[in-house]
Amino acid sequence: MIVELISTGSELLLGDTVNTNVSWLAQELNKLGYTIAHQSVVGDNPKRMAEVFQLASTRADIVISTGGLGPTQGDITRNVLADSIGRPIVFNQEAMDEVKKFFDRVKRTVPDASRREAELPEGANVLHNPVGVAPGVVVEDGDTTYILLPGPPGEMKGMFHDSVVPYLMNRFGSQGVVTSYRYGVYDIREIDLENTLMDLIKNQSNPTIALLIKKGYIEVRITANADTLEAAHEVLNPWDAIIRERLGARVGRDLTVSMEETLGHVLLEEQSTISTAESCTSGLVGKLLTNVSGSSEYYMGGVISYSNDIKHRVLSVPQDMLDT
Amino acid sequence: MIVELISTGSELLLGDTVNTNVSWLAQELNKLGYTIAHQSVVGDNPKRMAEVFQLASTRADIVISTGGLGPTQGDITRNVLADSIGRPIVFNQEAMDEVKKFFDRVKRTVPDASRREAELPEGANVLHNPVGVAPGVVVEDGDTTYILLPGPPGEMKGMFHDSVVPYLMNRFGSQGVVTSYRYGVYDIREIDLENTLMDLIKNQSNPTIALLIKKGYIEVRITANADTLEAAHEVLNPWDAIIRERLGARVGRDLTVSMEETLGHVLLEEQSTISTAESCTSGLVGKLLTNVSGSSEYYMGGVISYSNDIKHRVLSVPQDMLDT
Repeated sequence: MIVELISTGSELLLGDTVNTNVSWLAQELNKLGYTIAHQSVVGDNPKRMAEVFQLASTRADIVISTGGLGPTQGDITRNVLADSIGRPIVFNQEAMDEVKKFFDRVKRTVPDASRREAELPEGANVLHNPVGVAPGVVVEDGDTTYILLPGPPGEMKGMFHDSVVPYLMNRFGSQGVVTSYRYGVYDIREIDLENTLMDLIKNQSNPTIALLIKKGYIEVRITANADTLEAAHEVLNPWDAIIRERLGARVGRDLTVSMEETLGHVLLEEQSTISTAESCTSGLVGKLLTNVSGSSEYYMGGVISYSNDIKHRVLSVPQDMLDT
Repeated sequence: MIVELISTGSELLLGDTVNTNVSWLAQELNKLGYTIAHQSVVGDNPKRMAEVFQLASTRADIVISTGGLGPTQGDITRNVLADSIGRPIVFNQEAMDEVKKFFDRVKRTVPDASRREAELPEGANVLHNPVGVAPGVVVEDGDTTYILLPGPPGEMKGMFHDSVVPYLMNRFGSQGVVTSYRYGVYDIREIDLENTLMDLIKNQSNPTIALLIKKGYIEVRITANADTLEAAHEVLNPWDAIIRERLGARVGRDLTVSMEETLGHVLLEEQSTISTAESCTSGLVGKLLTNVSGSSEYYMGGVISYSNDIKHRVLSVPQDMLDT
């Protein structure tokens, strides 16, 4: 099942906003076994947006957009979709009920402009917004399923988990899972690495394999599609063995687990605690360590010794060492 | 002058990598007065990539891609472009010289596979890679200029500044500048804000205006295109005055300058210093403060008091307060 992701909004075209919605959605959809073949970003321009929707419908089974569902003049995604599939915009009572529920919750009357949020392409289904006002929209048209989600990440993510996943499951059934192993490989050139794994690269279909140059290492990623996570692991494990056998010590850490998680596991296992003293990184290491849930079990705290005075007085770094 | 940005690579479609290349390029190109109308992401699939290049040529004057210029089998951007514009791939001596220069610099012989990096569409110009091996590629075809850049951000950015900007200047002359003012607006609903600024929204052309919902505030952005930065400011200033007059105290800080920069300016002006004591944020505030260049003038360091023990012993927070 092929998905195309469409992001709308001039903030993306200006580069003001990094498009984290699309990477988040791609990860979630891949976990569910869907394949993303294209991602498109377009501004709030009705003609360009309609063309992007039309094109997407020719190359994907499911078209998911983010943005442009609010009540303002700039929120045109509902209308653009209606135009691009040739359906009228009609008042949708279910959507209005959703809007009303939101304003009831915050004890305010529904503003006139929010009526726009209930004007949907004819035949649309409504997705509950667990965070904001604008309901999401699903339209089935011919072979294509269109899903319109709000742009603010919190609203988009909540709606995806609460409503889109159940909708997809109900409509298309399980698509299995897509999962990857990712390795950091050190001390080898990309072309030598490719030669070492050339048979896998030439014969890839499931799993697939990709090399990706990173700073100081090359990431090798193998990705499998299977009915269950266990079955996907069974597809990946023989390749995992080949990669480890051929590359030996050049295979560094497992990139699917972050460094701070790996460290956390070790500390929990050894029942150890850790504290930090940071200079140039100035709190970054502390922040990373506490990104791991449960880190309060082992992370005590730290000193940020940005000035030499603090390095000397608090951490007792000898003054003559600081002077050199 | 309309630009389309194409990003290639399955890591983007899987969501493993957040597409920071495209936001960086969009910002840089907007500063130079170019308009980004579309961004497209596609995997390393020759047919899909060729279709994306062909489509881009119909809707943009300049098509800039990132990724797929390395020496491996997966690096197919050069070949895809050649196919999509109907030119043969030929050996390019200038590109080979660039490749050779890189390996001379690191005192290694040129590996056979790197010859691929010098096989370019006929008639291509070569862009020097200041960081890695793969040269960039420029092809003029009909009304379209294609620019192929490497995917690793360091290589892409270096090549953009060193070679792409001079190439664009030389080829198309100055396009002026595009610049924005961005305001955080508090304590108003989006629809009320829209009503307050409706005349600007309805009559926008240069400057343009956009509203964007953020967590706890609404971002208002006005954007102007003019020959010089000064002239762009002159276009923006009357709207700036209108926005400030109508919204008054609801206009919060200037979002074009980060909070940490604003704080830095104040501290430098007052010749004050600052230290941090962080619990939940666990170093994040220290890290943000030192993201500002020159912050060592005023930031001394801090304590990360993640555990209650450290809050009590180091920061002297009363134990009974911690217990409640």
